[in-house]
Amino acid sequence: VRSTMSTVASFADRLFDAVERTDCRVVLGFDPWIDRIPGELRTSGAQAKDPESTARLFGAFGREVIGLVAGRVPAIKVQIAFFEELGPAGLRVYSELLGVAREAGILTIGDIKRGDIGSTAGAYAKAHTGTGPFAADAVTVSPYFGRDSVAPFAAGPERGVFVLVRTSNPSAPTFQDLEVDGRPLYEHVALEVGRWGQDRGASGYSSIGAVAGATYPRELGRIRSLLPHTPLLVPGFGAQGATAKDVAEAFDGKGLGAIVNASRSLLYAHEKTEGSWKDALLGALETSRTAINEAIRAR
Amino acid sequence: VRSTMSTVASFADRLFDAVERTDCRVVLGFDPWIDRIPGELRTSGAQAKDPESTARLFGAFGREVIGLVAGRVPAIKVQIAFFEELGPAGLRVYSELLGVAREAGILTIGDIKRGDIGSTAGAYAKAHTGTGPFAADAVTVSPYFGRDSVAPFAAGPERGVFVLVRTSNPSAPTFQDLEVDGRPLYEHVALEVGRWGQDRGASGYSSIGAVAGATYPRELGRIRSLLPHTPLLVPGFGAQGATAKDVAEAFDGKGLGAIVNASRSLLYAHEKTEGSWKDALLGALETSRTAINEAIRAR
Repeated sequence: VRSTMSTVASFADRLFDAVERTDCRVVLGFDPWIDRIPGELRTSGAQAKDPESTARLFGAFGREVIGLVAGRVPAIKVQIAFFEELGPAGLRVYSELLGVAREAGILTIGDIKRGDIGSTAGAYAKAHTGTGPFAADAVTVSPYFGRDSVAPFAAGPERGVFVLVRTSNPSAPTFQDLEVDGRPLYEHVALEVGRWGQDRGASGYSSIGAVAGATYPRELGRIRSLLPHTPLLVPGFGAQGATAKDVAEAFDGKGLGAIVNASRSLLYAHEKTEGSWKDALLGALETSRTAINEAIRAR
Repeated sequence: VRSTMSTVASFADRLFDAVERTDCRVVLGFDPWIDRIPGELRTSGAQAKDPESTARLFGAFGREVIGLVAGRVPAIKVQIAFFEELGPAGLRVYSELLGVAREAGILTIGDIKRGDIGSTAGAYAKAHTGTGPFAADAVTVSPYFGRDSVAPFAAGPERGVFVLVRTSNPSAPTFQDLEVDGRPLYEHVALEVGRWGQDRGASGYSSIGAVAGATYPRELGRIRSLLPHTPLLVPGFGAQGATAKDVAEAFDGKGLGAIVNASRSLLYAHEKTEGSWKDALLGALETSRTAINEAIRAR
């Protein structure tokens, strides 16, 4: 068993290999919003408002997007909520798109933010890892239950987990900034997540990562310095307002250790341009990629 | 619009009406575990290990259980994780069972523990409330994002929400007991949840409730005293070890204000008895119901 296991690279190693191969630190966040999907995809039946045809439209959009970004981004983060909204038909498409991305050689991050007591977290882990129906290379999870809710997802270093540490939304400070022994709560969560991630791949990073929002850049830099071996998944760039300079805080001295999610600013870039939606998306991706790489170099 | 709205009773009022009507403070937690479902339900095809037939078995078991407890319990709490594990086929059955319970006059609680930034929480709320594919009368939600992740679920008092305050699992203390200004974190979460719940039905309770585990009875009593207008959903009774005396801490002077979840101790009561699984379940329910009612009276 050991020799079989050792042939599977850790999630962290696969992630940072893909970052170096693509020279891209941007992860495409696939958040399908029905009203913003490019008009040319909404052909006849796909325009209908029922969940089945909306799910088909999300699937068609997703496959096009994956085809466009394959080889250009290290990973795609798929937000399950927008599929769950459509019921079982939507979740079938969620599952399919994870498979399409995997076949295209793109690492998959299931943005699920699940969390529960151990036995229930085990059921979620069976759903979203390994051979489960919604298996992704990594998932996001919530920290409130403590280690019980995270451990089933982190059964081996080949599985990636990103634990919420500092979220990017306006009401994030309500609990996350409460002061405990002279430190905000999110730093305690960060340190605990760092303790959970004792595995180290060749990259020097654990497969237990943290979500650290870029809309709070000072906090992001603090989390980076507290967690030298923890990969950071950084939301909040683009539509949520964080800049390339803000997200540069998340990276180590070699420009690794983090990935930056961009969703709406890429998927709906066509709303602000004249050309095709594909050119708009690829243009926005290239602009983001180079801006982040340059901001890291400029530090 | 206002007159239409006012005809819809608040979730809290409907819940405590149902508690008084049934004289039962136990909520049946439907946690289907494939290996523990009564043998007589596992006929031929239903024994197969594929997700489709497991989902069918969960559906058959759920319909039988709902038929048994209709009129006896105020609500049923359905744990989505066990259905999610089976993929889209499982989630279709989850959706169906919520409908079956509703038709049987049992209030439904979707145990989903979702939580995300506002726009994404809005998608989850569309999935799990109102006319959504997984609509329940109430859902459980996670507090880490603050109000942004809760507000979309609490769009009106007819919708119930139970925010995680103190969970029942072994690693709950890791973050929930961290001390902030002389109080544990979970008390800060409790007070904030109390502030969010400014609506009051005829019962005197808000439709924004809290999850407070009975495996920590001292903390449970403390949460009750901090939150005079907040319904408590109390897990941890039975299989997780809490007693009727422990859970009695959750109730107000009139014996209202809380519901106690029991899952495995009811669903799998047949494992410890000789008779039929239905008699075992109903016997265990009656034992739990009277034990809790007596423990409340004995305070």
